[in-house]
Amino acid sequence: MNKKVLTAVLALVLGAGYALTAFSQVKPDVLVKQRQAAMTLLGKYFGPLGGMAQGIVPYNADVVTRNAGYLEVLSQMPWDGFQASTANEKSRALPAVYADTVKFKKAGEDMQAAVAKVVSVSKGGDEAATKAAIGPVGKACGGCHDNFRQKQ
Amino acid sequence: MNKKVLTAVLALVLGAGYALTAFSQVKPDVLVKQRQAAMTLLGKYFGPLGGMAQGIVPYNADVVTRNAGYLEVLSQMPWDGFQASTANEKSRALPAVYADTVKFKKAGEDMQAAVAKVVSVSKGGDEAATKAAIGPVGKACGGCHDNFRQKQ
Repeated sequence: MNKKVLTAVLALVLGAGYALTAFSQVKPDVLVKQRQAAMTLLGKYFGPLGGMAQGIVPYNADVVTRNAGYLEVLSQMPWDGFQASTANEKSRALPAVYADTVKFKKAGEDMQAAVAKVVSVSKGGDEAATKAAIGPVGKACGGCHDNFRQKQ
Repeated sequence: MNKKVLTAVLALVLGAGYALTAFSQVKPDVLVKQRQAAMTLLGKYFGPLGGMAQGIVPYNADVVTRNAGYLEVLSQMPWDGFQASTANEKSRALPAVYADTVKFKKAGEDMQAAVAKVVSVSKGGDEAATKAAIGPVGKACGGCHDNFRQKQ
């Protein structure tokens, strides 16, 4: 098969946008969609933990362990989507994302570190300590959103 | 703080849709958005592997290891989004998703098993064997899409 045919096959399976990721620059709109997908899932799996930390949903150690593990992986996924090529795409990312890349990177790393803390503390099985470790994740999310995401 | 205030605080951090996940039934449109996010990221991280298996992007063992690990986690994420409550939401999911739940579940498990195979085989460091293990993941994606996703 030549390259065009292979491209078509891959596009059939994955959709045209994703096939491109395999062998060329990813298009800016796809990058935005992918980074937003990572944020959506970070929200999905952090939501219940935030609720538990605040006592508004019952504490469930199994859910904490599972979600914290998911969050640790997901927290690595958004960042390569914030390439300069995406600066003019429609999204809530503020210009500061592309202008203050050092501070933005630090904000992402702070979130990752806070998530890693929940993963390690939750292994100890101490509910109060785990709840206390969840708070800083929410703060890291919110802090980054305050500086780098447009208010709705 | 009463529950309303806590809800508002969580909504500020996560967005209104996600705050709900913490302590009530997740709304059908949010479930669809979350499952689509998981599919988007499955595509992001499988795309390059599919390209490598077909020889259209250079083989990179580090990328295979990283992406296979991501896929193993992501492959667990879409399924709880296909709840009956979402059957009338706008999406490409075919009625068979909700009608033939046994077959749909099996299709998801086949994909997870194929991904797990790539994870284990890639640890052996054999490029040809790893490429051979990637093919069945693409087939599992495509097979499920054929039966359960509307053609575009």
